[in-house]
Amino acid sequence: MDFALVIGYLASLCSVTSFIPQVWKVVKTGDTAAISARMYALTVTGFALWSAFGMMRGEWPIILTNTICFCLSGFILLKKLRR
Amino acid sequence: MDFALVIGYLASLCSVTSFIPQVWKVVKTGDTAAISARMYALTVTGFALWSAFGMMRGEWPIILTNTICFCLSGFILLKKLRR
Repeated sequence: MDFALVIGYLASLCSVTSFIPQVWKVVKTGDTAAISARMYALTVTGFALWSAFGMMRGEWPIILTNTICFCLSGFILLKKLRR
Repeated sequence: MDFALVIGYLASLCSVTSFIPQVWKVVKTGDTAAISARMYALTVTGFALWSAFGMMRGEWPIILTNTICFCLSGFILLKKLRR
């Protein structure tokens, strides 16, 4: 068994579980007033780059966590920029 | 040149640059009212596990990003729990 992979999936679970409720709240309420578009663009870019890094390394915990977070945060950024 | 590593460092830069100002604000003002201790504990655990994962894989972009974020967010969690 690959122990590092188990740690990676646990890390992924923590990140997603702690990030999703915040993001989901914004998606549901549509309230993006508290978000800085510039900072958030950096966050979204970060998730995209981490996803790319994960794909290049073939590390599934990185790929899963960051593609999920990228989609949700990207959706919020689009919402924010449309206002 | 390891292209994935370059992507990893860029990802690291984005994550740290977007996360630090938020965290620094809380560290500086000491205002942790808006933070859910339970959710934040999960965030801190996530950073610790990602750091461990990075160390096991020998991936410096992961190690650097997550140890920095772990220290800052851990400090905030301690502050929050002491109130």
